[in-house]
Amino acid sequence: MSEILTSVVIFGASGDLTGRKLIPALYNLYRKGRLPDPFQIVGVARSAYSHEAFREQMQQGIVSFSGETFDNQLWRAFAERLWYIRADAAAPEGMDAVLEFLSARENHTGNRLYYLSVTPTLYVPIIQNLGAHRMEREDEGWCRIIIEKPFGTSLDSARELNHLVHKVFDESQVYRIDHYLGKETAQNILFFRFGNTIFEPLWNRNYVDHVQITVAETVDVEHRAGYYDQSGVLRDMFQNHLLQLLALVAMEPPSSFNAAALRNEKVKIFNAVRPVLIEDTVRAQYEGYRQAEGVAADSKTPTYAAIKLFIDNWRWQGVPFYLRSGKALAKKSSEIRIRFQRPPLMMFDAGHPPDESFSPNCLHICIQPDEGIKLSFEAKLPDSASETRSVEMAFDYSTAFWQCQIPEAYERLLLDALLGDASLFTRSDEIEAMWGIIDPILQGWNTPAAPPVAGYPRGSWGPAEADALLHRGGQAWHLRCGGQ
Amino acid sequence: MSEILTSVVIFGASGDLTGRKLIPALYNLYRKGRLPDPFQIVGVARSAYSHEAFREQMQQGIVSFSGETFDNQLWRAFAERLWYIRADAAAPEGMDAVLEFLSARENHTGNRLYYLSVTPTLYVPIIQNLGAHRMEREDEGWCRIIIEKPFGTSLDSARELNHLVHKVFDESQVYRIDHYLGKETAQNILFFRFGNTIFEPLWNRNYVDHVQITVAETVDVEHRAGYYDQSGVLRDMFQNHLLQLLALVAMEPPSSFNAAALRNEKVKIFNAVRPVLIEDTVRAQYEGYRQAEGVAADSKTPTYAAIKLFIDNWRWQGVPFYLRSGKALAKKSSEIRIRFQRPPLMMFDAGHPPDESFSPNCLHICIQPDEGIKLSFEAKLPDSASETRSVEMAFDYSTAFWQCQIPEAYERLLLDALLGDASLFTRSDEIEAMWGIIDPILQGWNTPAAPPVAGYPRGSWGPAEADALLHRGGQAWHLRCGGQ
Repeated sequence: MSEILTSVVIFGASGDLTGRKLIPALYNLYRKGRLPDPFQIVGVARSAYSHEAFREQMQQGIVSFSGETFDNQLWRAFAERLWYIRADAAAPEGMDAVLEFLSARENHTGNRLYYLSVTPTLYVPIIQNLGAHRMEREDEGWCRIIIEKPFGTSLDSARELNHLVHKVFDESQVYRIDHYLGKETAQNILFFRFGNTIFEPLWNRNYVDHVQITVAETVDVEHRAGYYDQSGVLRDMFQNHLLQLLALVAMEPPSSFNAAALRNEKVKIFNAVRPVLIEDTVRAQYEGYRQAEGVAADSKTPTYAAIKLFIDNWRWQGVPFYLRSGKALAKKSSEIRIRFQRPPLMMFDAGHPPDESFSPNCLHICIQPDEGIKLSFEAKLPDSASETRSVEMAFDYSTAFWQCQIPEAYERLLLDALLGDASLFTRSDEIEAMWGIIDPILQGWNTPAAPPVAGYPRGSWGPAEADALLHRGGQAWHLRCGGQ
Repeated sequence: MSEILTSVVIFGASGDLTGRKLIPALYNLYRKGRLPDPFQIVGVARSAYSHEAFREQMQQGIVSFSGETFDNQLWRAFAERLWYIRADAAAPEGMDAVLEFLSARENHTGNRLYYLSVTPTLYVPIIQNLGAHRMEREDEGWCRIIIEKPFGTSLDSARELNHLVHKVFDESQVYRIDHYLGKETAQNILFFRFGNTIFEPLWNRNYVDHVQITVAETVDVEHRAGYYDQSGVLRDMFQNHLLQLLALVAMEPPSSFNAAALRNEKVKIFNAVRPVLIEDTVRAQYEGYRQAEGVAADSKTPTYAAIKLFIDNWRWQGVPFYLRSGKALAKKSSEIRIRFQRPPLMMFDAGHPPDESFSPNCLHICIQPDEGIKLSFEAKLPDSASETRSVEMAFDYSTAFWQCQIPEAYERLLLDALLGDASLFTRSDEIEAMWGIIDPILQGWNTPAAPPVAGYPRGSWGPAEADALLHRGGQAWHLRCGGQ
């Protein structure tokens, strides 16, 4: 066991994320004996809490969000390592207080993981303040910083933010989080592709007709309307989650499963994305969005978008990737659909009923909420001479691994950051490459060539324009996870 | 509707097969409106039955073996078309009686399907007798003959039998039956392979490590010991069922789904099988076989065999195919296992527990009794960094097609013969090519180089020698359909 104290310092500790995700995740890591020893968690925020009041608040979160795993004795041991500092981390004297508290307990040496769970406008002041206090140094223990999304609001601002971060921290210390990468099913995409022999030979332009990536939400902008109207679905979902899923599906096999190799391959994919044509984009708002408090009456901020893109490399040349995401949709579902081509020779009398056409093979990777994989294929209809029907093989993650609790994404990501594994975090060149795809679309939407802002009913599957985007290629959107 | 009477003439009508399989199959075809109109069924045998007694006997078979589909009113309409002639079809005057009966009802023209459901020694006398009576002629209606297995007992005898058959019937009139080909799941192998895009690219030496074909029976030789001791498992199961399954798995895609194209491809496979090395064969008897009545006390007839063979073509060069079949085994199961190669790069820490090694992908095609398909693959173990576990996607035929009754093999085969579709029947060159594989093994077993006749306990999975056959290639037998 290391004798060096490891501190997780959460800036923005009074916020929603801390109580709902971060502390429950750390508690579960503690319960599983995966946290370093000794360790402490230090919450920092401007709200007035005593250590004890903060602990009580956090306990409620664990009881609510960790469910059955709450154990009172364990909690008491964990809570003893939980501290709260009331401070404005963006102000010099605020950081003085944080540093003083850490130094007093560290006995000259300590590992530190800073977690920026604050509003994005505070990223730079806090990072600069950490720098001013020389709190990025790794003389004795290690020192890392996790930065929440959004990381920038455009390519320029992301570059600028990287530049400012790098004035204080070395890139190797920086962990830009996208919680989608912490999801078991997202990680499983790589295991599925590269832990098996049978999928990779099919995973290219010779066999794949097109790919669909859907991240659908049922919720609307809720109380976040003020923030959201400045952001919109491209920044909120595409620049991070959807593009990360795209990279996992499309990337070449890395030569090893480490952070550098993985992220190199992702960057290659992002750099190979052909600039998206403005006519291959759809933007829309759900009915009533402009009436929400905090939203401009003439807002053009999309709550839904769909785009068609191509990847200019040998593997994917000519294969369309369709990405869509939106709020107030019919169903909460994140899934990836690989649609394969038709067999080169249709030997059988498919003989489908008129309402059901021949279905080429499809692989559905269900990210949430029903994590699993579904593979559809044609089988002979019994008692017919040569009619076929589309049938399905399914793998359900929670059934297959019923004996395992599928952990929350943050649990895995916090553990990785503590272990120094940056594989599931976004590197600076990666985030800029992602913005390099999204930014021109955002700019294009400010030109006369931009598609109109379409409307869609709440609880629908988005605007007709998004269907038309696929119909032009002879395709249609499909979800299979949990049924559409 | 055709006005020409179609007659199904069953030689050997008092036998087990007629009551248990043929009449129930014809009844079901009638029930589904698939039989030609008008039609009649004429049973011929030496036993004494009146028409009415024969009908009563057949009714019992339908009630027993067709189950819920028995409908008394329907049965009465069907039974009116059911006749019995007491005659020795191998004797001139016996065939006189059959011809007289048919002619009287045919009004100068009729279609005839002869079914040879008799002991093999009667094939030639009956066929010659049909020829002597010019009952093979197709002047007015069509005329076809179904010949049950076994078709010959060696390459020479099969050739001789073909020669004698062709003296009377044209090959286009001859339907050699292998009821395995009538099974929905056996047919589905071709639909699975060629109705889908995603399997065929993997179906070759680049991705397949080896193939296992198992046809396991739990029954012993029962009352058939006298016959069986002259035959043995190679003639009884390998020369027909196992080699047909091999052809369905291994054949190239035909250019169309018709009888000529399909059978050309099968013959190509049989002709490409490399002569089996005698050291790649295993033969065995279950304990107590030699004590069965009708079995020679020093019998060397195997009730179990396993062979390893190679197919010398571009697709399968170097891929071993392991075939095994036996009686008195632990479980009734016919299945095909395609084991794929390992991924070229093991990127993940497989981290399996010591008792469970890494499992390369496997596809299991379950022919009976649980018809379906199972695909195993590696998935990430939740809450681990990079451990994987083998999981399974399954397709169950009876669940997917719960609204369809899966018909008996004979139903499909009788219908095809009535429709003149010979796709699922064995052509003369095909049967000789199959004997060309089996005959040298039978001969080799009479030489000093032959493997000893091993023993195996009833209810086991066969002799240790069969396991050793696979262990030499670093493999092991596996069944997945219904669990081993």
